[in-house]
Amino acid sequence: MSERLVVIGADAAGMSAASQARRLKGPDELEIVAFERGRFTSYSACGIPYWVGGDVDSRDELIARTPEEHRKRSIDLRMRTEVTEIDVPGRRVRARDLESGEEAWTAYDKLVIATGARPVRPELPGIDAPGVHGVQTLEDGQALLDTLRRTRGERAVVVGAGYIGVEMAEALTKRGYQVTVVNADPQPMATLDPDMGALVGEAMTGMGMEMVNDAEVTKILTGEDGRVRAVATDDAEYAADIVILGIGVRPNTDLARNAGLPLGEHGGLLTDLAMRVRGHEDIWAGGDCVEVLDLVSGRERHVALGTHANKHGQIIGSGVGGDYGTFPGVVGTAVSKVCDLEIARTGLREKDARAAGLQYVTATIESTSRAGYFPGAALMTVKMLAERRTGRLLGVQIVGREGAAKRVDIAAVALTARMTAEQLTTLDLGYAPPFSPVWDPVLVAARKAVTAVRKGG
Amino acid sequence: MSERLVVIGADAAGMSAASQARRLKGPDELEIVAFERGRFTSYSACGIPYWVGGDVDSRDELIARTPEEHRKRSIDLRMRTEVTEIDVPGRRVRARDLESGEEAWTAYDKLVIATGARPVRPELPGIDAPGVHGVQTLEDGQALLDTLRRTRGERAVVVGAGYIGVEMAEALTKRGYQVTVVNADPQPMATLDPDMGALVGEAMTGMGMEMVNDAEVTKILTGEDGRVRAVATDDAEYAADIVILGIGVRPNTDLARNAGLPLGEHGGLLTDLAMRVRGHEDIWAGGDCVEVLDLVSGRERHVALGTHANKHGQIIGSGVGGDYGTFPGVVGTAVSKVCDLEIARTGLREKDARAAGLQYVTATIESTSRAGYFPGAALMTVKMLAERRTGRLLGVQIVGREGAAKRVDIAAVALTARMTAEQLTTLDLGYAPPFSPVWDPVLVAARKAVTAVRKGG
Repeated sequence: MSERLVVIGADAAGMSAASQARRLKGPDELEIVAFERGRFTSYSACGIPYWVGGDVDSRDELIARTPEEHRKRSIDLRMRTEVTEIDVPGRRVRARDLESGEEAWTAYDKLVIATGARPVRPELPGIDAPGVHGVQTLEDGQALLDTLRRTRGERAVVVGAGYIGVEMAEALTKRGYQVTVVNADPQPMATLDPDMGALVGEAMTGMGMEMVNDAEVTKILTGEDGRVRAVATDDAEYAADIVILGIGVRPNTDLARNAGLPLGEHGGLLTDLAMRVRGHEDIWAGGDCVEVLDLVSGRERHVALGTHANKHGQIIGSGVGGDYGTFPGVVGTAVSKVCDLEIARTGLREKDARAAGLQYVTATIESTSRAGYFPGAALMTVKMLAERRTGRLLGVQIVGREGAAKRVDIAAVALTARMTAEQLTTLDLGYAPPFSPVWDPVLVAARKAVTAVRKGG
Repeated sequence: MSERLVVIGADAAGMSAASQARRLKGPDELEIVAFERGRFTSYSACGIPYWVGGDVDSRDELIARTPEEHRKRSIDLRMRTEVTEIDVPGRRVRARDLESGEEAWTAYDKLVIATGARPVRPELPGIDAPGVHGVQTLEDGQALLDTLRRTRGERAVVVGAGYIGVEMAEALTKRGYQVTVVNADPQPMATLDPDMGALVGEAMTGMGMEMVNDAEVTKILTGEDGRVRAVATDDAEYAADIVILGIGVRPNTDLARNAGLPLGEHGGLLTDLAMRVRGHEDIWAGGDCVEVLDLVSGRERHVALGTHANKHGQIIGSGVGGDYGTFPGVVGTAVSKVCDLEIARTGLREKDARAAGLQYVTATIESTSRAGYFPGAALMTVKMLAERRTGRLLGVQIVGREGAAKRVDIAAVALTARMTAEQLTTLDLGYAPPFSPVWDPVLVAARKAVTAVRKGG
């Protein structure tokens, strides 16, 4: 007898799950129905800043798989159809066709919730004015590009200086805008410690961007035509022909909350290691709408990243299809860039370590991406946190130029393996003059951390 | 009472040891005498191909620390002085001043042997002819550059296609030579499996180099002026204005052998984990003259690499100075490049796994360095070996363009932590479109390896 899988949300997690389930079970065994309220499936939201900035030519390049491609694999994909209710006891979902407004119930045997995240959108006067744009979905990206093509502006204000904020600052700079980044924190990149975030701020200033820190946006000011004309903080006004909101995202879990499914302290769905919603044998959840275990702190956190969403989808699809896989958790790795500045982190920041009750030492060093004498050797700063006494690696942050970002993977694997800083110092990493100094920068930081651990008592 | 440390060999391992010992003990506590038969100290031999090729302007850039700098730190450095005998029971070494020919004994309380490696130099007719060059030492590099400046040749033959061979092929190509690489193995880069070596061979051919595989050099032919004019194999002759020998190196351990110190099957000194020569409390050895434990196969191997030499020196210096550190072993990581082709390996090749009695599966995939849609995304091939049944990672080889080489560090750390391919699939690696596809190429290979392990029975 055939079962029915219903998938809510047809982006990375949802459609990876559907595809993997389909690989394991044919249409005679498993019917798959997927609901998507948007117009696109399986796209790289992380690529939107590069599409806006012109590195990527067309929207279609960001789409890994179109609705038609999914349908060819016997997935009944219902686009522009929003699920409005999950009836858990009744094992059914209600969905509304956004074109016709019609609603209908669809029964499920197995359910995958992949409703993603939604951008934080402060309740500010003027926030809905023309010229104010989010960049969460492909639709958002398209709307922004349409505006950029229609209006020939000179000044852009980016609100927020996290990953999206700094990437959009690059994109608009590339488009010829004079960019101001207005940021509520003392430094950009609050995902780094302030001392490392300050390096990013200095570099962005050096790129000609205006960095306004410690500033809360109070109002979006509009002109006589109703379009945005400036962003106001308590202290000042910043002229803007266009405003980008990049303040962060929250799990999109109203549907799950209303259905009585378990949410964590960050608002994300809570799952077991096989990505099943806790307490629910036949409901899975993955991607930006779930919380994941932080393997370093031992606590749940919310990380909205396509790479996790794809892994979740893979594991969920295996489970739905009767195979087996688990997602053990994350260590908190993230990489980004602003023009030629590379930014990376993994593990805990100082404040994360404190919040987890961990005592730690820090070590910050400067080194180069290649042997110092090799052409193109670029400076990078590496900061390492290690636990007091045990010396266990707790986190690494890197800010530098070419070759800085992906070096954080060394630490990401070491964190997963719960290595100590001392163990890091003897790692057998790739060495040749074009690729690394004889001591890789991560190892130089580890050596300094070992000394700090010894002194740390 | 002051002790005397004698160091034999003043390059990476020896002088790192001396410097670290000096950091821990002042001249009143520890006298340090170092003997060096050459003219240079503490230099990057790995940088020689890039000096020859013109990436690095001057010899001095390759020298991390000059004799004078060492002497300023109260190290009694005796240059151009060769140790000719170690009298272990008498705790003394005999050294000859290569200028004056005078010999004298020097007593030691502690001894560090860092005599390095010497190039394999086959007994071939014509091998000593002018125009035939090794590239092991700075002196070799200088001699080669002098020849290149004096003679305006057109054709170069590189004998050997390992790291030095391919790097010298690049260097001479950059200098405008038509390069032929003559190689005894079926493929270049015998440190890779043949299928991966073949990719290197194809790429080098594409760069305009002539690749002659499966060919044993039988003779170096000279012209009427006595200079090299060609390299002969059984089948053919290859015209050469200059010949580079890059056939590999062996531990330089005659001195140690004559002193009755323990050598392993590869001819290197055997040490304990603190880098003390086995059975000898007061003798340490490190760098290219020792064998190291291969953490994957559990067997000793010989790896001549500056990065290990520096680590050994650091650990030896700590031990000599009364502190503590160990070198747990290597996983066999090496990276290199030929022009824009990057080559990396870590862990075991297929033949290493077989020799160690390990049964394994392989997985080879092609992926890109960045998101496929991101400008500059470059293809790379990743091959992974995992143990049959357990799925334990055994090795990774990568051949590709920008971003290929240092990715091997992910696997190097995972090998150290004895992770399985399945554990790799959920690693939290840095992801953003400019730096990686949503599944890092190493993870794509891991996923395929997991499937192979399952099928492998």
